[in-house]
Amino acid sequence: MNINELPTPAVVIDMDLLQKNLATMSAIHPGRRLRPHIKAHKCSGIAAMQVAAGHNSFTCATPREILGLVHLGIGNDFLLANEVLDESRLTALAEAQTEALITVAIDSDECLAAAHKAGIRSVVIDVNVGMPRCGIDPTRAGALADSARALGIDVRGVMGYEGHLMMVKDRDEKKKQVHAAMSLLASAHADVGGDIVSAGGTGTHDMFAGTTVNEVQAGSYALMDSQYAELGHDFVQAMWVVGTVISTNEKWSVIDAGIKSLAMDHGNPTIKDHAVWFCSDEHTTFSANEGTPTPRVGERVYVTPAHIDPTMALHDVAYVANIYGDVIDEWPIDLRGW
Amino acid sequence: MNINELPTPAVVIDMDLLQKNLATMSAIHPGRRLRPHIKAHKCSGIAAMQVAAGHNSFTCATPREILGLVHLGIGNDFLLANEVLDESRLTALAEAQTEALITVAIDSDECLAAAHKAGIRSVVIDVNVGMPRCGIDPTRAGALADSARALGIDVRGVMGYEGHLMMVKDRDEKKKQVHAAMSLLASAHADVGGDIVSAGGTGTHDMFAGTTVNEVQAGSYALMDSQYAELGHDFVQAMWVVGTVISTNEKWSVIDAGIKSLAMDHGNPTIKDHAVWFCSDEHTTFSANEGTPTPRVGERVYVTPAHIDPTMALHDVAYVANIYGDVIDEWPIDLRGW
Repeated sequence: MNINELPTPAVVIDMDLLQKNLATMSAIHPGRRLRPHIKAHKCSGIAAMQVAAGHNSFTCATPREILGLVHLGIGNDFLLANEVLDESRLTALAEAQTEALITVAIDSDECLAAAHKAGIRSVVIDVNVGMPRCGIDPTRAGALADSARALGIDVRGVMGYEGHLMMVKDRDEKKKQVHAAMSLLASAHADVGGDIVSAGGTGTHDMFAGTTVNEVQAGSYALMDSQYAELGHDFVQAMWVVGTVISTNEKWSVIDAGIKSLAMDHGNPTIKDHAVWFCSDEHTTFSANEGTPTPRVGERVYVTPAHIDPTMALHDVAYVANIYGDVIDEWPIDLRGW
Repeated sequence: MNINELPTPAVVIDMDLLQKNLATMSAIHPGRRLRPHIKAHKCSGIAAMQVAAGHNSFTCATPREILGLVHLGIGNDFLLANEVLDESRLTALAEAQTEALITVAIDSDECLAAAHKAGIRSVVIDVNVGMPRCGIDPTRAGALADSARALGIDVRGVMGYEGHLMMVKDRDEKKKQVHAAMSLLASAHADVGGDIVSAGGTGTHDMFAGTTVNEVQAGSYALMDSQYAELGHDFVQAMWVVGTVISTNEKWSVIDAGIKSLAMDHGNPTIKDHAVWFCSDEHTTFSANEGTPTPRVGERVYVTPAHIDPTMALHDVAYVANIYGDVIDEWPIDLRGW
């Protein structure tokens, strides 16, 4: 089947470009220096390719992501980089510890108590490094680690996500701010101990020389989106949502891909050589730029999402295509949910 | 089970408030005068309650919504208020014509040809009434209807969605604009013929006196969202996304519900007595207003989405609760996809 025969809206991944992105990142952060973040794609097919690229340790945002990969035997070292209180999910993670090394982030006594009650054996201390979200104050990280060890739990180290710095445009300024954030993480690590100092994302993956960070939690680099493309890294767009033109006139055209197939939290998606006007539940209205012919009804249109992570989470399946546009595989987006 | 025991993030519907909203709308537009839009909830459990409230004709945005309801025997008259070119989906709809009256919107010769090829027997002409999306120019609607009838297809009438007017704040100005849009629909109807003049949504449902519109396609009224609440109609919020506080400090708190459980195209969700700072993939960061205590880790928080339709489409199931917070039913959100 060719891409142009797929029912739409459809997620299409260019296999060659995905492999190029994986190889680019693996060259920068080989093996355990990269802990690929599953939340960016929620797709075991991509995780398997990340294993093939040399990475067996993964970052996950939800118990479901970990349990899905453990069940499939993909990867062997999982970090739940998120606070979870839910007893049944923590218990399921604890039961999976016989099959893989599972480490849970904690940032409070309550999180520690929930993890301990469920039988979780390994944690990292999640340290706040400046973003107003999860993470304990760096000065209190050591005490939480002591409490965990007193319960017999292995404290593997620290993590700290500098998500607020991903899109800083000036590279020198960005590096300065990332290093300041990572010095907070290093000070917490000095109190906590353990081998892991985990941080980062696609937007900061090349900022850690001279820091103590020893694994990078990047995820979006594999498929990319229009926001991360602004940073000018060597990663290319490898995924699109393909829509079909269902209505057109001399002023605008409409495809059958909208808010229910394209996440909108980073703004409108983009279409090459066209201007996107707005998205509705099941539609995107757009017009051709000067010099570009108006598309015909039935024609396929490739849409680049503004934010890859939540866009992938809207779809059941990703179609994998070769350079000829042939669909060579279908990967269920099977790690969705919680 | 109580709401406070649900794994989160979770969609919770207040049964009494849902019933109140359904009764309020059914009193305004009883029976066939309302053609409830399924896209707002994609949940057959709610559709069944709309049937119980006297409505057997439904508006749908996707073939999947129609086929799911036909399969369950909920409703008997379905309008696909959207242009579909996909041959396999149109064929599936055509096959379902033995079990229900199915009518497909068309706005071009290409749509007509695809519907005819698949064996669709009934259409309405989708007329553009001012919103830059689908719909044929009103002056060309009659010719398209003639083409359809020449192929032996029953042309049941016209539809026109004035979506661009839903959020006009001044009621007099809104009514003026809605009536201008509906006069375009009426002129097209004069050329097209048929019994159906279908239009409207929750935001304009009370604007049609003095027009020829004879059925209203409202959907959001059942569950509501923070945007529609601004219009001051008699519908109340009947659905929330419940999150659990996973991290908190003296300045902010974080719940485990974010962009992957709350649609962001209408902006941030809201939390009563709190200020929402921002949403990430799996988190919402917020702070308590003055006089409101900071929530504790593990506490449940009710989040009102800014846009109900795409929020429902993010979840597998809706939990239905009574006024005591007991979960009395679980409704799969089973009409998702395309």
